[in-house]
Amino acid sequence: MKRENNRTKEELRPVKITRNYIIHPDGSVLIEVGNTKVICTAVVEDKVPPFLKGTGKGWISAEYSMIPGSTKTRKTRDINKLKIDGRTQEIQRLIGRSLRSVVDLESIGERTVWIDCDVIQADGGTRTASITGSFVAMAEAIYKLYKNNEIENMPVKSFVSAVSVGMISGEAIIDLNYEEDSSADVDMNIVMTDKGEFIEVQGTGEEATFTHNDLMSLISLATKGCRELNGLQRTVLGEEISGEIGK
Amino acid sequence: MKRENNRTKEELRPVKITRNYIIHPDGSVLIEVGNTKVICTAVVEDKVPPFLKGTGKGWISAEYSMIPGSTKTRKTRDINKLKIDGRTQEIQRLIGRSLRSVVDLESIGERTVWIDCDVIQADGGTRTASITGSFVAMAEAIYKLYKNNEIENMPVKSFVSAVSVGMISGEAIIDLNYEEDSSADVDMNIVMTDKGEFIEVQGTGEEATFTHNDLMSLISLATKGCRELNGLQRTVLGEEISGEIGK
Amino acid sequence: MKRENNRTKEELRPVKITRNYIIHPDGSVLIEVGNTKVICTAVVEDKVPPFLKGTGKGWISAEYSMIPGSTKTRKTRDINKLKIDGRTQEIQRLIGRSLRSVVDLESIGERTVWIDCDVIQADGGTRTASITGSFVAMAEAIYKLYKNNEIENMPVKSFVSAVSVGMISGEAIIDLNYEEDSSADVDMNIVMTDKGEFIEVQGTGEEATFTHNDLMSLISLATKGCRELNGLQRTVLGEEISGEIGK
Amino acid sequence: MKRENNRTKEELRPVKITRNYIIHPDGSVLIEVGNTKVICTAVVEDKVPPFLKGTGKGWISAEYSMIPGSTKTRKTRDINKLKIDGRTQEIQRLIGRSLRSVVDLESIGERTVWIDCDVIQADGGTRTASITGSFVAMAEAIYKLYKNNEIENMPVKSFVSAVSVGMISGEAIIDLNYEEDSSADVDMNIVMTDKGEFIEVQGTGEEATFTHNDLMSLISLATKGCRELNGLQRTVLGEEISGEIGK
Amino acid sequence: MKRENNRTKEELRPVKITRNYIIHPDGSVLIEVGNTKVICTAVVEDKVPPFLKGTGKGWISAEYSMIPGSTKTRKTRDINKLKIDGRTQEIQRLIGRSLRSVVDLESIGERTVWIDCDVIQADGGTRTASITGSFVAMAEAIYKLYKNNEIENMPVKSFVSAVSVGMISGEAIIDLNYEEDSSADVDMNIVMTDKGEFIEVQGTGEEATFTHNDLMSLISLATKGCRELNGLQRTVLGEEISGEIGK
Amino acid sequence: MKRENNRTKEELRPVKITRNYIIHPDGSVLIEVGNTKVICTAVVEDKVPPFLKGTGKGWISAEYSMIPGSTKTRKTRDINKLKIDGRTQEIQRLIGRSLRSVVDLESIGERTVWIDCDVIQADGGTRTASITGSFVAMAEAIYKLYKNNEIENMPVKSFVSAVSVGMISGEAIIDLNYEEDSSADVDMNIVMTDKGEFIEVQGTGEEATFTHNDLMSLISLATKGCRELNGLQRTVLGEEISGEIGK
Repeated sequence: MKRENNRTKEELRPVKITRNYIIHPDGSVLIEVGNTKVICTAVVEDKVPPFLKGTGKGWISAEYSMIPGSTKTRKTRDINKLKIDGRTQEIQRLIGRSLRSVVDLESIGERTVWIDCDVIQADGGTRTASITGSFVAMAEAIYKLYKNNEIENMPVKSFVSAVSVGMISGEAIIDLNYEEDSSADVDMNIVMTDKGEFIEVQGTGEEATFTHNDLMSLISLATKGCRELNGLQRTVLGEEISGEIGK
Repeated sequence: MKRENNRTKEELRPVKITRNYIIHPDGSVLIEVGNTKVICTAVVEDKVPPFLKGTGKGWISAEYSMIPGSTKTRKTRDINKLKIDGRTQEIQRLIGRSLRSVVDLESIGERTVWIDCDVIQADGGTRTASITGSFVAMAEAIYKLYKNNEIENMPVKSFVSAVSVGMISGEAIIDLNYEEDSSADVDMNIVMTDKGEFIEVQGTGEEATFTHNDLMSLISLATKGCRELNGLQRTVLGEEISGEIGK
Repeated sequence: MKRENNRTKEELRPVKITRNYIIHPDGSVLIEVGNTKVICTAVVEDKVPPFLKGTGKGWISAEYSMIPGSTKTRKTRDINKLKIDGRTQEIQRLIGRSLRSVVDLESIGERTVWIDCDVIQADGGTRTASITGSFVAMAEAIYKLYKNNEIENMPVKSFVSAVSVGMISGEAIIDLNYEEDSSADVDMNIVMTDKGEFIEVQGTGEEATFTHNDLMSLISLATKGCRELNGLQRTVLGEEISGEIGK
Repeated sequence: MKRENNRTKEELRPVKITRNYIIHPDGSVLIEVGNTKVICTAVVEDKVPPFLKGTGKGWISAEYSMIPGSTKTRKTRDINKLKIDGRTQEIQRLIGRSLRSVVDLESIGERTVWIDCDVIQADGGTRTASITGSFVAMAEAIYKLYKNNEIENMPVKSFVSAVSVGMISGEAIIDLNYEEDSSADVDMNIVMTDKGEFIEVQGTGEEATFTHNDLMSLISLATKGCRELNGLQRTVLGEEISGEIGK
Repeated sequence: MKRENNRTKEELRPVKITRNYIIHPDGSVLIEVGNTKVICTAVVEDKVPPFLKGTGKGWISAEYSMIPGSTKTRKTRDINKLKIDGRTQEIQRLIGRSLRSVVDLESIGERTVWIDCDVIQADGGTRTASITGSFVAMAEAIYKLYKNNEIENMPVKSFVSAVSVGMISGEAIIDLNYEEDSSADVDMNIVMTDKGEFIEVQGTGEEATFTHNDLMSLISLATKGCRELNGLQRTVLGEEISGEIGK
Repeated sequence: MKRENNRTKEELRPVKITRNYIIHPDGSVLIEVGNTKVICTAVVEDKVPPFLKGTGKGWISAEYSMIPGSTKTRKTRDINKLKIDGRTQEIQRLIGRSLRSVVDLESIGERTVWIDCDVIQADGGTRTASITGSFVAMAEAIYKLYKNNEIENMPVKSFVSAVSVGMISGEAIIDLNYEEDSSADVDMNIVMTDKGEFIEVQGTGEEATFTHNDLMSLISLATKGCRELNGLQRTVLGEEISGEIGK
């Protein structure tokens, strides 16, 4: 199997994270993973969902969407079908859960951090890019709260990154682009902390099944990729912010 | 940790599958897993979704819902919010994918098998009970097509069962009831074939993370549980139908 | 005209009401009328709709739904059409009105009794079975309030039951099953108290009309059927609860 | 009990039906019953709902709405709640059924007669005024088909009118205005043909019940009122059209 | 170009405004402009939208709708498409803005004036008729507040009227009926005060463009028409109310 | 009045149009007008809306949206309110009309050109930037059809650009940013061709009115701005494409 640009099976596509991509949000990045491009923003609001009112605890809520021109065939907007499609719901729930698992929600007080991931160009791996990118936007937004003394300590406990892995013709490969994704038998998304712990492991046989050995290979491949992405996040956030994460 | 009814960590709750529970559908069961009760039905329609028209290929589509009285606090119906909640969408997509992965969709022709899982009493594990139960309803419905010579061979290639596993206070346990589920740090749902292969592996840290060792323990526990459930499905379906599966 | 199982024109199908069918609600029954099966639940909530806030008065609100597998042809879920169909709305309004007419809403205080009727198998008469069954679930739920001293007296003033009657080829018959209902010229649903008073009389010519004499025959037939159902409700609820109704 | 304008218990409010009230529809009237005013229109479309395609049979479909300024308290438009309220659905189903029961749907061929009842001022009895008025609009629209030789015979078999009756403080009265309706214990709507046959009988105890004697009084009162309204319809439609109805 | 009824290019159709057309609202008119007929009502509510709560400022909110029988081809109700169409939204925003521009919103206090424009017959110019008519309904409703000493001074600063103008075959004409509107190359709606000032100027090339000279001719034509309509409004409102406007 | 960056009243903000900003659509640009940034894409589909089927004529359909992070206060997504807000509808209708007015829809055959304008950063003038930018994306997409011999001649007849103008404290200024827009008394959007003709003129007094002189100043200012933008479009599209426009 030959991959685009002579990528090896274990090689991520070039990843670039641009901070402060948008002026209004508290944190914002453009993350580019090969041809996949996602704008991730974080906005802090002094309000929590009803189930948290009066608890002193905060929340992180994520939304995900693709602009119509981002995909090969123009994507109809949700509002024109009056429904959020199931895939979108799955993804936004995944992003929210992933970020919440590394933030001490008590420490941010009764605030909501709104995460928005808007895909402007899609070529596979949009959900994992969204997680990796929005972690950076979120870290920046929360760091500002801390820096402005609105919260007492930096409540982000770990870095979070995500990567996709999959099986094509019996081989495990990392960071599938759209074409590879379409022909994969098994598709797995893994979300990890920089401490090597799992937050999410989601593997799916696409009209297929997979063995215990397949699972082991995929997990090992993903672990390596996530570590690399954590390194990039650390660099992009700089010592000032990174130094406070998990302290 | 002490479990209800002195269950061990590796022990499933009592499981009962009643076939032909409802008269109208082509296949229908009531599956009871402890206090969790789900009606699973399978109805064959001579029509496919637009994207399959003219391909000769069939489809399996699943829907999941809970009646308002099934949960501790009355569950508001989706229609009154004009939205299917994200959890429901995730579950119905999971059920559909799981069943499609063991059926040769070409062999069923341009037909849709509609799977409906209606939870009438919930006490944890409704999604996995839905998969285990609806496999039986589906097998029966498809077997009737085969028996009536509407299709040439029995296109069900494997048995499919599912079980939840989780970590509580560092210990891996199987088949969590609602109370256990609420206090679990890690929650994992596993869907497997009777050949010991995976169809889905979905593990989630609930505002927590998990290690590679945790993952291994959970998978091993789940594998055992699924095998047991496959055995029960085989018994319930009887030799006539079971004998044709995977032939 | 010959009826299934040699039923006479004036004969109800076998009726069975199982109490405590579901564990979570305050009251719940499975009512079976021939092949028609409905789960009826009652849940008390310490809240009233906006128009009753501050009045000290309570409310009884009913919802009705059919699971997709309950009907001959699979019934599409309301949420997938984003609309509650008109028939469903009519039925749930009828159930609510019927139950409210025998409860002293002042006495239950600012509480809502939520009634849910979920049809799991339909063979005609689902709306009348829903009323007859949900009366039992409601009586039980309200009796618990009374028993727990949350309300001062038992505010249920009468038993309520309902039955369908209809004209086929000029003859009045009671408790029509689906096939009979489909060929009836006149269709009437009657809701009555155990004191022989009417709560609702709804007669409809289905692309047909009916005479004063027809109306008289239908009403007389229904009166007899409702009395029988009231007797069954009394038995099912037992002396402890029945003795408090209408005291 | 004293009624507005010294009406007796058996006296209808002044009724006025203005034909050709709107220029575009095939039939249109303004019906005024006291202060209640409804625009009723009938539009013929050469198309039927899916379930009638290819059957050669036609359909009559009715919709009902109130303009926001028609009621005492401004009525929010359905579209702003994204829901048709249950009362509206009940009414439009009732209007459609009532009209269909006197039209030979085979004779009108694969056409839909769309009936629209738009209440511009409400003071009780809007649903019965809608039926009485829309019968005239429908008769005119269908008569035009017949006159233009698009259909072979006039398929309207009877006149249809409707009236409300109710019990206040134990007395039966006819044609309740809004204030009377609000204080009635029993509320009944009756739809009849000019042959004295019933199409619909809908009686409801409003948090109350009613006896067999009450029912008899109400029906007898309504019968008289409907006969009067049929007479008015006959006059308004004129000999040319009326002479063809039920021929 | 010959116009219906020998109208000149600069001549409005006959305009008639009937006050107190509906009994319940605080102000209501029927405005007839040729065959175009719109019921305009104004209802005052002691509440403001969330963004104004606590500001002491009031609001004017407008809604517009067409009954199904008002147009040549029956107009499907918005609720049946679950969407307000874009044209309707544009129109109701325009009506609201136009009226708000001549009312001192501080002076009416925290109240909302609800304007409803329900078109019962359409023949071009419904949006401009709605503005001209609803100004009268609004003026009456606000005048009542003033007269009842609920507000201190009459906060309506100017009269507001609106008219459509357009270009057909290079000629500017005023007050286009439906047929003219359908063949116009340029369509313009102008909203003006009685002081000759503009509130809105909306000109649109319909798959066409227009020159600076065209624009000048259209504006000059519209100015004359609006002045005429302001005169009519003044007469209809009478000296008592008109005398307070702009005082 | 002092403007940001010492802009004069007649001076546009810096405008930059980047072609081929997104890989999948047939045409795509990023347009930046000061801090306002909009992605405009054009996708050609071989299908037309129902009302054009069989006419041989094509269509241009535009949609507009803002990502949540694009505005000062996070903008809730339409889908979460189940409604497209009125402002969005107005804008997308304006964009569509503007582009259709310069394209010979017969020449493009039964195709739809889908225009999508997704605002990624908003600072005033997003609707005019959307028109100016999407003209370039559309021209490119249609040119490709022409170049590939799918259509016979280049059907784009003129360049189209748009600009906002407004009155602040009695002075006319061009290209208002968000802050200026918020304090403007009059707000006008003008769409013009490169031949100096108008496509749309939309002027609005924001709780204010404007005179004939104001109108003249605004139009003259806008005319100059549009001419400048047309020049930029011509440069960006290059001689190859620009040379075919209006030929």
